[in-house]
Amino acid sequence: MRSTSVSDRDATRQAHSQGVGARPGTLIIPDDALPPKLFLFSYDANGFDECECSSYDELMQRFRGQPERRHWIDVRGYGDVELMRRFMQDFGLHPLQMEDVLGDYQRAKVELNDDGQLFLVSRMTEFTSQLEIDDDQLSLFTGSNYVLSFQDDYEDCLDTVRQRIRSGYSQIKQRPPLYLAYALTDVVLDHYYPTMAAIGDYIEELENVILRGRPNKRLLARILQIKKDIVRFRRLVYPEREKIAELLRMPDEVVSEEMKVFFRDCYDHAIQALDLTESYRESVSSLIDLYMSDQSNRMNEVMKVLTIISSIFIPLSFVVGLYGMNFQRENPQGGINPLNMPELYHPLGYPVLLGVLLVIVTGQLVYFYKKGWLTN
Amino acid sequence: MRSTSVSDRDATRQAHSQGVGARPGTLIIPDDALPPKLFLFSYDANGFDECECSSYDELMQRFRGQPERRHWIDVRGYGDVELMRRFMQDFGLHPLQMEDVLGDYQRAKVELNDDGQLFLVSRMTEFTSQLEIDDDQLSLFTGSNYVLSFQDDYEDCLDTVRQRIRSGYSQIKQRPPLYLAYALTDVVLDHYYPTMAAIGDYIEELENVILRGRPNKRLLARILQIKKDIVRFRRLVYPEREKIAELLRMPDEVVSEEMKVFFRDCYDHAIQALDLTESYRESVSSLIDLYMSDQSNRMNEVMKVLTIISSIFIPLSFVVGLYGMNFQRENPQGGINPLNMPELYHPLGYPVLLGVLLVIVTGQLVYFYKKGWLTN
Amino acid sequence: MRSTSVSDRDATRQAHSQGVGARPGTLIIPDDALPPKLFLFSYDANGFDECECSSYDELMQRFRGQPERRHWIDVRGYGDVELMRRFMQDFGLHPLQMEDVLGDYQRAKVELNDDGQLFLVSRMTEFTSQLEIDDDQLSLFTGSNYVLSFQDDYEDCLDTVRQRIRSGYSQIKQRPPLYLAYALTDVVLDHYYPTMAAIGDYIEELENVILRGRPNKRLLARILQIKKDIVRFRRLVYPEREKIAELLRMPDEVVSEEMKVFFRDCYDHAIQALDLTESYRESVSSLIDLYMSDQSNRMNEVMKVLTIISSIFIPLSFVVGLYGMNFQRENPQGGINPLNMPELYHPLGYPVLLGVLLVIVTGQLVYFYKKGWLTN
Amino acid sequence: MRSTSVSDRDATRQAHSQGVGARPGTLIIPDDALPPKLFLFSYDANGFDECECSSYDELMQRFRGQPERRHWIDVRGYGDVELMRRFMQDFGLHPLQMEDVLGDYQRAKVELNDDGQLFLVSRMTEFTSQLEIDDDQLSLFTGSNYVLSFQDDYEDCLDTVRQRIRSGYSQIKQRPPLYLAYALTDVVLDHYYPTMAAIGDYIEELENVILRGRPNKRLLARILQIKKDIVRFRRLVYPEREKIAELLRMPDEVVSEEMKVFFRDCYDHAIQALDLTESYRESVSSLIDLYMSDQSNRMNEVMKVLTIISSIFIPLSFVVGLYGMNFQRENPQGGINPLNMPELYHPLGYPVLLGVLLVIVTGQLVYFYKKGWLTN
Amino acid sequence: MRSTSVSDRDATRQAHSQGVGARPGTLIIPDDALPPKLFLFSYDANGFDECECSSYDELMQRFRGQPERRHWIDVRGYGDVELMRRFMQDFGLHPLQMEDVLGDYQRAKVELNDDGQLFLVSRMTEFTSQLEIDDDQLSLFTGSNYVLSFQDDYEDCLDTVRQRIRSGYSQIKQRPPLYLAYALTDVVLDHYYPTMAAIGDYIEELENVILRGRPNKRLLARILQIKKDIVRFRRLVYPEREKIAELLRMPDEVVSEEMKVFFRDCYDHAIQALDLTESYRESVSSLIDLYMSDQSNRMNEVMKVLTIISSIFIPLSFVVGLYGMNFQRENPQGGINPLNMPELYHPLGYPVLLGVLLVIVTGQLVYFYKKGWLTN
Repeated sequence: MRSTSVSDRDATRQAHSQGVGARPGTLIIPDDALPPKLFLFSYDANGFDECECSSYDELMQRFRGQPERRHWIDVRGYGDVELMRRFMQDFGLHPLQMEDVLGDYQRAKVELNDDGQLFLVSRMTEFTSQLEIDDDQLSLFTGSNYVLSFQDDYEDCLDTVRQRIRSGYSQIKQRPPLYLAYALTDVVLDHYYPTMAAIGDYIEELENVILRGRPNKRLLARILQIKKDIVRFRRLVYPEREKIAELLRMPDEVVSEEMKVFFRDCYDHAIQALDLTESYRESVSSLIDLYMSDQSNRMNEVMKVLTIISSIFIPLSFVVGLYGMNFQRENPQGGINPLNMPELYHPLGYPVLLGVLLVIVTGQLVYFYKKGWLTN
Repeated sequence: MRSTSVSDRDATRQAHSQGVGARPGTLIIPDDALPPKLFLFSYDANGFDECECSSYDELMQRFRGQPERRHWIDVRGYGDVELMRRFMQDFGLHPLQMEDVLGDYQRAKVELNDDGQLFLVSRMTEFTSQLEIDDDQLSLFTGSNYVLSFQDDYEDCLDTVRQRIRSGYSQIKQRPPLYLAYALTDVVLDHYYPTMAAIGDYIEELENVILRGRPNKRLLARILQIKKDIVRFRRLVYPEREKIAELLRMPDEVVSEEMKVFFRDCYDHAIQALDLTESYRESVSSLIDLYMSDQSNRMNEVMKVLTIISSIFIPLSFVVGLYGMNFQRENPQGGINPLNMPELYHPLGYPVLLGVLLVIVTGQLVYFYKKGWLTN
Repeated sequence: MRSTSVSDRDATRQAHSQGVGARPGTLIIPDDALPPKLFLFSYDANGFDECECSSYDELMQRFRGQPERRHWIDVRGYGDVELMRRFMQDFGLHPLQMEDVLGDYQRAKVELNDDGQLFLVSRMTEFTSQLEIDDDQLSLFTGSNYVLSFQDDYEDCLDTVRQRIRSGYSQIKQRPPLYLAYALTDVVLDHYYPTMAAIGDYIEELENVILRGRPNKRLLARILQIKKDIVRFRRLVYPEREKIAELLRMPDEVVSEEMKVFFRDCYDHAIQALDLTESYRESVSSLIDLYMSDQSNRMNEVMKVLTIISSIFIPLSFVVGLYGMNFQRENPQGGINPLNMPELYHPLGYPVLLGVLLVIVTGQLVYFYKKGWLTN
Repeated sequence: MRSTSVSDRDATRQAHSQGVGARPGTLIIPDDALPPKLFLFSYDANGFDECECSSYDELMQRFRGQPERRHWIDVRGYGDVELMRRFMQDFGLHPLQMEDVLGDYQRAKVELNDDGQLFLVSRMTEFTSQLEIDDDQLSLFTGSNYVLSFQDDYEDCLDTVRQRIRSGYSQIKQRPPLYLAYALTDVVLDHYYPTMAAIGDYIEELENVILRGRPNKRLLARILQIKKDIVRFRRLVYPEREKIAELLRMPDEVVSEEMKVFFRDCYDHAIQALDLTESYRESVSSLIDLYMSDQSNRMNEVMKVLTIISSIFIPLSFVVGLYGMNFQRENPQGGINPLNMPELYHPLGYPVLLGVLLVIVTGQLVYFYKKGWLTN
Repeated sequence: MRSTSVSDRDATRQAHSQGVGARPGTLIIPDDALPPKLFLFSYDANGFDECECSSYDELMQRFRGQPERRHWIDVRGYGDVELMRRFMQDFGLHPLQMEDVLGDYQRAKVELNDDGQLFLVSRMTEFTSQLEIDDDQLSLFTGSNYVLSFQDDYEDCLDTVRQRIRSGYSQIKQRPPLYLAYALTDVVLDHYYPTMAAIGDYIEELENVILRGRPNKRLLARILQIKKDIVRFRRLVYPEREKIAELLRMPDEVVSEEMKVFFRDCYDHAIQALDLTESYRESVSSLIDLYMSDQSNRMNEVMKVLTIISSIFIPLSFVVGLYGMNFQRENPQGGINPLNMPELYHPLGYPVLLGVLLVIVTGQLVYFYKKGWLTN
C-alpha cells in the first residue's frame, strides 16, 4: 500500500507514473509493482468455489468452464504487463481504462462501456499512526456474469465481503454481479468512518494539548498536517459521491431499480462522510484560532510578569538611588548646607524610608490585583 | 436520548453502530437500546381511541380490527430485534430503511417506496445546559391508513400533537395520515426555534463576558464549542429543508396539492431556521474577532503600564545615580579638583535637584496624557 | 414598530410568537398588538373616495357597494382576532397565510392561491439612531378588484403612494390592483436605499474614528454590531429579490406582460440593493482589518517609547553606577591601591564623564533616527 | 463625469437621484446635469455625414430626411427635460428605461422591447490619480436604422469609434446599427483594461512600499481603498458579462448569428476582465497579510533592541550597584568587620571587576549572536 | 516564451497588445514577434513526410498536392503579418479568431465554426527557477484533413507527439486530424503535472524553512508570490476543463463518440489538476498561518529573555541600591542614630546580603522553570 500523506506529492507521483507525454493508453507498470496473484470466487445461489489460481490459463479455464455461474476475479498486484494485456484482450477492457487501473491515482469514477460493461474506481483509505492517510485504488469491471477487480496490494479491506460469500446464506450469491460490485463499494465506504473517527480523535487530542498542555511550533505543524489530510480525504470522498450519483442516473437496463435502492443507501453514506469532513475542517480551523489565541495569551502572561516586577522595583530603585546621592552637608569652605539631604541625618530616616517603600509596594500590588493581573 | 455534542464523535458512533463491513440491511440493535413501548392512536373524524399495547399481537389486533379508521403506531425504544422483524414483515418495510431507523444517525430524508408508502426521517433537537445539542431521530412510515413512528427514547417533543388528537376538534382526525406526518414534522421543526433561541442567548452572554468581564482561554474554548454546535445544527437542519423540498416535488397522487400547501409552510420554517444558523455563524465569528481584539487590548494595557512606569523612573534613576558617583573634590596629592561635581557642595544642590526631577516627571506625564495613555 | 436589532432575538421572537407546537394555522394575536384601524381607498380612472372606517361592517358595505371600482383596504394593527377571522372568511384567505400575516416575522415571499389571488409579503426597514434596523412586515392580498394590506403599526412608509392616489393624475387609478401592489412593493424597495445610505454613512464615520481618533474596545463592538445589521439586512433583501423573480416567472394570465415590465424594474432595484450589501460587508471586514492593525500600531508605538527611553537611560545608569562604586584607594593597611578607580581622582574626571554620557546619548538618538523610530 | 470612489456613496446617490417613493417612470433631471449637445453621424456603405446639431428639430430633420441611411444620434448631457420627453415620444422609449438613462446609476443590462428595439446600458470606467474609479453610464437604444446613445458628460472614450467611422473603410458603415452598438460596447470593455492595469500597477507599488519602505497606518487605509475599488469594479464588470450572455441567448431575428460571433468575442473579454479582478482581490488580500506581518516584524525588531540593551546593561548595573553598597569595614565600636566587602580594599579589585563586566557582556553578545538577533 | 509571473501584468499586456479601441479583428503583430518558421508533417496510415518549409508557397504546394493525406501545419513565430493574412484567407480563419491567436493571451477555449472547423486554444505552462509560471499559447485549427497550429516560440513541449508520429506504429497516423489535436491537448495537460510538482516541492521547501530555519520578511513575500502563481495557474487550468467539457457536449458529427472517450480521459486529467491547485491553495494558506505563528513565537521568545533577565536583576538592583544609601549613623550634632542602617555595621552584613540575593535568584529561577520558560 503506497503511503501518500503529503498531497503535494500527488502531482509528482502522477507526473512520474504517467510518463509525461507518453502515448495515451500505453500500459506502464510501476517499478515497484508486486507480482500479481489471481483469486477466483465462482458462485451461484447454491454454493461457491474459491481458489487462488497459479496461472492465467487456469483462471480462464475455470471461468470459461462455468458460464452459468457468477465469478469474482480478484487480481492483486500489477507486476506483469503481459498478463494485463491478456485481461484487456479477453475481457475487452478499454486501453485508457486499463491505464487508469495501473496508474493507481485515479479519482473515484464510473464509466459505462458500449457493451454494458461498467468500470468503477473506488479509493480505499486508512489513517496511519504517522498521521497520514494511506489510500489505495480498487478498480472494478462488471460484466453479465463476472466482476473483475484490480488492486496493487495483497492486503485489503474487502475480507468481510469474502466472508459473506463463504457464509451459508448471502444475498451476493443470489443476485447479479452488480450486487457484488455494490457490496465492495459499500465496504470501501464503510471503511471511511474508522478513518474519520481516527481523524476526529486526533483533533480532540490536539485540542486537549492546547487547552491543558504547552503547545509549541511543532504542534501547529501537526494541526496543519491534519488539515491537509482532511482536505485530501475530502478530495477522495467527493468523487465517490459523484460516482454513485451517476450510477443512480443510469438507465434501468444498466442499473436496475432494485439495485438503485442499494446504491441510494451508499449515496446517503457518502453524503454523511462529506458532511463530517466539513465539520472536521471547521474544527481544525477552530483549532488554529485556539492555538493562535493561546500564543497570544502566553505572551500576555510573560508581559504581565515583566510589568509587575518592573513596575514594583523600578520606582523603589529610584528612591533608594535618591538617598545614595552624595550631596554634602558640609561645605569645603567649612560652612553647613542644611538643605542638602537632611533626611540622611534624621534619627528615623532609614526606618521611615523602609516604611515608604512598603507603602509603595502595597499600593502597586493592590492596583495590579484590582486589574486582575495577579489572579489568573 | 443520546447526547452527542462533539461532532467528531459522530464518525465513531457511526463506525460502531453500523458494524463496519456488515451485510447491508442487517438489523443491529444498539446495546443500550430501551425495551420497546407500543402506543396506538386509532381515530377518525368522529373520535379516537388511545392505548399503550402490552404486546405486538394486541397492537396488530386493534390495528387490523379497525381498517376503516386511521392509526398512529408509536414505537418508542428499539431493544427487541424480533419485534422489529415483525414490523418489517407486516408493514413491508425495506431492510435498508429499517437499518436507517435503528442506526439512529440518519440525516433527515424522505423516500417513496413502490407501494406509495413514504419513509420520512426527522431529527429532533434540544440544547442542553452543557452547551450541547442533543439530537434524536424520528422515523415515520406512512401508509394509506397508518403512520408508523419509531424513536429510541420514551420522552419526546411530540406531546402537543397527541394533545391535539385528544382535543375535541382537530384537523388531524379529519385528514389523511400524511397530515399527521406533516403535523409531527412541523412540531419537530418548531422545536428548532427554542434550540436556536438558547444558542442565541448563549452567544449574547458570551459577548457580554468579553465586553464587560475578564475573558480567559476557557472562554475561547466555549466560543469554539458553540461554533461547533452551530455547524452541527446546520448539518441537521439543512437536510430537513431538502427533505421537504423533495416532498413538494413529488407527484400529486402521493402528496396532494392540498397537503403541499402545508408542507410549503414547513419549507418556509426550515429556510428561516437555516437563515438564523447563518446569522449565528456570523455572530460567532464576530465573537472570535472580539475575543482576539480584547486579548490584544489587554496586552496593550499591560504594555502601557510598563512603559509609563519605566519611562518615568528609569531617567530619574539615572539622575540620582549621577549624583551618587564618587568623584573626589580633593586630590590624594592634596590639591583640589574644583570641576569634580561641584553641585554636590552647593548649598541648594539637593533642593534644585528635587525640582529638576519634578519637572521631568511632570513633562512625561503631560506627554503620556496627550498620547491618551493615561485616560483609557 | 417592533425594534429587533439583534438577529439572535429573531429566534426567540419566533419561538414565542408562534407558540411552539401549536396547531398549524391557529390565529395567535401577539399580546402587544394594536387595535386595528381600517382605511379604505376606492378608486377608478375618474376619481377616488377615501375613508377611515369605524367598523368592519361599514368597510364591507362600502367595498361591496362599489363592485365596479378598485379598492385598497388598508388594515393597521392586529389586535382583534374576530376581525381577522372575518377577513379570512370574506376574502378567502388561507389560514396558514393569515398566520404568516400575524406572526410578523415572515420573510418576503409571494404565493399564488387557487383563485388567482396573490399573497405578497414585503419587509419595510428603517435604520434607527441606535444603530438598529427596525423592520416591519407588509402583507398584501390582491384580488380582481382589491388590494388588502396588513401591517402591525399605524405609521408606515407608504404615504407617497397614498399621495399619488390622491393626486389628480395617477397610473394607479388607471390600472389593475396588481399595479397598486407593485407601487407598494416599489416604495418598500425604495426605502431600502435610505437605510443603506445611513449604514454607509455610519461605516464611513467609524472608519474616520479609526484613522483619526482613538478607537477602543467599544468601537469594535459597534463595528461588529453594524456587521450584524448588514447580515440581517441582507437576509431581509435577498428574499425580496426571489419574490420578484418568482412574480416574473408567473404565467401571463396572473401577471401580465405589461406588469412584468414594472416588476423587472423592481428586480433591478433589488439586485442593486443586494450588490450594495455585499460592498458593505467588504467595507466592514476592511474596517475590522483596519481596527486590528490600528491596535497593533498603537502597541508598536508604546513599545517604541519604552524601547527608546530604556535603551538610552539603562546604559547611562550603568555608567554612573560604575563610578558610584566604593573601591578604596587607600588600603586599610595604609598602602595605596593606585589601580582602584583612579578616574575619580583625576581633576577632569567628572567633566570627561559627562562628555562620554553625551556621546552615548547622541549615538543612540542617531541610531533610532535612522531606524525611523523618532519620526513616526 | 461624476466621481464616486466610495461605494458607500452609491446608496446615497441612488436614494437622492431617484426621489424615494416617486412615481416610477418619473423623469427627474439631476441638478448638475449639463445642457445637452446633439451629434449626428449619418452613414451608409458609401460615406458619412457628421454634424453637431443646434436643435432637436434640426437633428430630427436630418434623421428623418435620410431613411435609407443609418444614424448614430449621440446625446451628451441631460439638462433639458423637455428634450428628453421628445426623444421618448419620437423613438418610443419606455418611461422606466428613460428613468434608467437619467438616473445614471444603472448597472449594465440589456432589454428587448416589443418592437425589436434593444436598450443597452454600459458603464465606462477610468482610474483617477486619486485612486478612485470614475464611472459613467452609456445608454444605447438601437432601432432598425439608428443607434441612439445617451451620456451625461461631453468627454468620453468613444472617439476611436468615431475615428473608425470617419476613416475610409470601416465595417461599421457596412453593417446594421447593432454592429455600431457592438463597437461601442467593445470600446467600453477595452477601456476596462487600462483601468485594471492602473490598479495592478498601484498594487505593485504598494507592495514595494511594504517590502522596501516604511509602511504606516495611512498605507493600510490606501490598501483597503484599493480593495474597495476592486470590489466596486467587479460590481461594474459582472453585469456587463451577464448583459452580453443575455444578448447571446437572444433569438437570431434580434441578434443575428453573425453578430453573435462578435458579441462572443466581447464575452471573452468580459470574462477575462472578471478573472483579473479575482486575481487582484487575491493580490490585495495578500498585501494585507504582508502589511500585518510587516507590522509584526517591526514590533519584533523593536523588542529585540529593547531586549538586547536591557539584558546587557541590567545585570551590569546590578554588579556595579553591588560595589556601591556602604557596608563598613570598620565597626563603630572600633573593631574590624573583615567580611564586609573585602573586595573593595583589594589592590586589583577594580581592574578585576572591569574584567568580569567585560566577560558578562561578551557572553551575552555571543548568546544573542547565536540566536540570530544581532544579524538580521 | 513570454514570462509573466506577476498576474497584475496580464492587464497591462492585454491593454497594450490589443490596442485599446482598435477595430475588432485587426491583425496586430507584437513588436517582439519572431519570424515564422513553417513545419509540415504529412502522414497517412502507411507513412509520413516531414519538412521545414522555406516559404508559404512551398508549404501550400505540399499540402494541396496530397489531398488524400493528413497534414499537421506547425507555425512557430508570428512576425509576418502578410503570411498570417494568407493563412486566414486560404484556411478560412475568422478574423476575430486570428486576433486571438496573435494576441497570445487568450484563455483556453474551443469554438466550432460553420464549416465544422474547430478552433482550439490551449495554454502551455512551465515553472521557472525564478518562481514564475511561464505560459505560452497553442492555437489549433482542425479541418477535415489538417491540423493547423500556431505558437509564438520555436521551443515547445510537443516533441513527444512529433516522436510518436515518427515512430513506426502510431494511432495518430491511423485516425482523423482531431486525434492529433487531442494528442497535442493531452501533452499540454500532461505538462501541467511537472509544473504543479515543482510548485508542490517549492511549497514544501518553504515549509521547511519556516519550521527549521529563520524566516524573514522576504520569505513571506515568496510565499505570497507562490500563492499568486497558484491562483494564476488555476486561472489557466480552469478554462481548459471548460473547453474539454464543451468538446464532450458537441454533436457526434463534430466529435465522434470514439473521440469523446479520449477527451473524457483529458477531462479527468484537467479535474485532477484543478483538485491539486485547490490543495495547493490550502497548503499555501496554511504556510501563511505557520509563518504568522512563527513570528509570534519568536516575539514570545524575545519577550521571555527580556522578562527573565529583567525580573531577576531588577529586584537585585533594588536591594544593592538599598545598601548604597547614605543614611548617617552619626548625627552632625554628634549623637548616634542607631536605627539608620545598622545592617551596614554588622560583621556579617555583607555575607548575609549575598546569601539573600542568592535566595532571590534561585526562587525566581524555580518559578520560571515551573512556568516552562527556561526549557523551550
